Amino acid sequence: MTAESALTPTPAANAAGLPLALDAVGGDHGAVPNVDGAVQAARAGVRVMLVGDRVKLHAELSKYPGAAGLPLEVVDAPDVIGMDEHASDVRGRKDASINVAARLVKDGQAAALISMGHSGATMAASLLILGRLPGIDRPAILTHIPAKTGTVALLDAGANADVKATYLAQWARLASTYLKVVEARENPTVGLLSIGEEDHKGNAVTLEAHALLRQQAGINFYGNVEGGDLFKGTTDIVVTDGFTGNIVLKLAEGEARVLFGWIREALGSSARSKLGGLLVRGGLRTVAEKMDPGTYGASILLGVRGLSYIGHGSADARAVKNALLRAARAHQSRLIERLSTELSGPS
Amino acid sequence: MTAESALTPTPAANAAGLPLALDAVGGDHGAVPNVDGAVQAARAGVRVMLVGDRVKLHAELSKYPGAAGLPLEVVDAPDVIGMDEHASDVRGRKDASINVAARLVKDGQAAALISMGHSGATMAASLLILGRLPGIDRPAILTHIPAKTGTVALLDAGANADVKATYLAQWARLASTYLKVVEARENPTVGLLSIGEEDHKGNAVTLEAHALLRQQAGINFYGNVEGGDLFKGTTDIVVTDGFTGNIVLKLAEGEARVLFGWIREALGSSARSKLGGLLVRGGLRTVAEKMDPGTYGASILLGVRGLSYIGHGSADARAVKNALLRAARAHQSRLIERLSTELSGPS
Repeated sequence: MTAESALTPTPAANAAGLPLALDAVGGDHGAVPNVDGAVQAARAGVRVMLVGDRVKLHAELSKYPGAAGLPLEVVDAPDVIGMDEHASDVRGRKDASINVAARLVKDGQAAALISMGHSGATMAASLLILGRLPGIDRPAILTHIPAKTGTVALLDAGANADVKATYLAQWARLASTYLKVVEARENPTVGLLSIGEEDHKGNAVTLEAHALLRQQAGINFYGNVEGGDLFKGTTDIVVTDGFTGNIVLKLAEGEARVLFGWIREALGSSARSKLGGLLVRGGLRTVAEKMDPGTYGASILLGVRGLSYIGHGSADARAVKNALLRAARAHQSRLIERLSTELSGPS
Repeated sequence: MTAESALTPTPAANAAGLPLALDAVGGDHGAVPNVDGAVQAARAGVRVMLVGDRVKLHAELSKYPGAAGLPLEVVDAPDVIGMDEHASDVRGRKDASINVAARLVKDGQAAALISMGHSGATMAASLLILGRLPGIDRPAILTHIPAKTGTVALLDAGANADVKATYLAQWARLASTYLKVVEARENPTVGLLSIGEEDHKGNAVTLEAHALLRQQAGINFYGNVEGGDLFKGTTDIVVTDGFTGNIVLKLAEGEARVLFGWIREALGSSARSKLGGLLVRGGLRTVAEKMDPGTYGASILLGVRGLSYIGHGSADARAVKNALLRAARAHQSRLIERLSTELSGPS
């Protein structure tokens, strides 16, 4: 089963349920990949609200013959937070697409918010409009890293540069429930990212978090993991602060890009290797696809009272489609309700 | 010019100069790779003192016919700090190989200390016996990461889990002089590892360090760099705390290992790709070699009053040889004297 097929929702279930609110003008490439991805998701049976400038979105939609028959609707939002604006601009600009989309979720008109736009603005709008789940001090971005054993859920991937040890313990709990509910993983293991396997290795926050995680109910704590354990897939979940997590994530993506660049170069260096390159192209593509962030589509912001997904600004239509399928699936598994129940239990 | 050929010292110069002190029983595999690597370096004209259990080392050396004619000598050190012992054991065990090697450097009988043994013990012995350079609060491990543009010098790779912003500014200065002296790089650029290019992005320590680096004399500060900039080679030097640096380094190595594993698997998946795999093998090996930590051999501990190199416990003979060549070259360029002079200048 590929990552993508695992994402496909039961079409009937979602078509009958709530639509998803897509910030359809957010991201480096504006409406084009968003509308394309939404059309693809709609064809797979997912209902989507395209939130953004009405005129632009209708114009873009008109390029898809047959779009009129799909479960797509346009919700007007005349304003958009640009990629180079401040996240705090969210407060004053209620007609911005991200705010309109977040309110649709808050008001129960949409099942989830998905944006490839300004990440900081998406976090701010989610936090301000949706609020936090009970017992959660700060939401965290959970992202999936490809690993030898499947994928590893890494959080926080960048929402909180400075953290308290208690946040890490809360995130371990959120992520454990997330994997149980959305990926049906039984009793997922939690690793604390540090600089040695031994309990006493780490920085001040990690040492404190280690002690908290040892006592934390509702999680299966493995202990410390190191940088090399991420791709090895030693644990299902890896918790860390948002500074380290963001650097780890961008390094992992950057390294894969450079390595594949070197391999392409090496394969073009002689007639012999060029011929070989043609023969191995398919195999290398499979590996490159594992590393492509577009396969997952977007990362979830865990800890807010509603489904919120944050994608790459450079997302293409495939990433948008996969993010929508992922959000539809989380909605069907009643993720937010399950998280709320879990968090009301013993801590 | 390959990384290795760049390392070769002028044989005559070193053979005439001070020998290097190799902790010849340190590391996961004990004397075997250490003696093998030392023999190879000695054949290239580097004088080496093999520090460790005399009987063991002579037995190992006797396997190399012609070793008697090489610039190698054995210095007895009956004790060794095991890989699973505590770094603090260094204090009480003056006959441990790492302590004997460090004293040889302190007393001017050896040019540098090189160990593939317990990293913590090597740091502790270096700090306690050699002491710090003027104006340096904490030494840092500088390691080389392969990048699109050559290599990037990353520090701290793990000596200091918790840091003050002032350390980062001191390390930027050390690393700048290091690259000027040892790699003849003119005015090397310094990047501060963070979670956004903008000056105001980062955690508390990074924000403070950013301000200090802007004012720091004797460096060419580029600004913030992100995780993806490491392999891109955006700057010559990247400074960060030892927690993040260690995770980054181990992630980078682990990711390369897993990616190459996947590629090998993909190349064996069909008759077609197997044939192609044979044709591209040479090209892939070149890429894999770039990623191999053994190409650099060891990382330097910058900030102590003497040359100190820390290698992987799993180092093979090639890594030992390359570490010795690297140390000989740093000694020839009078790195420690140059760092002392530089640090006595305006700060």
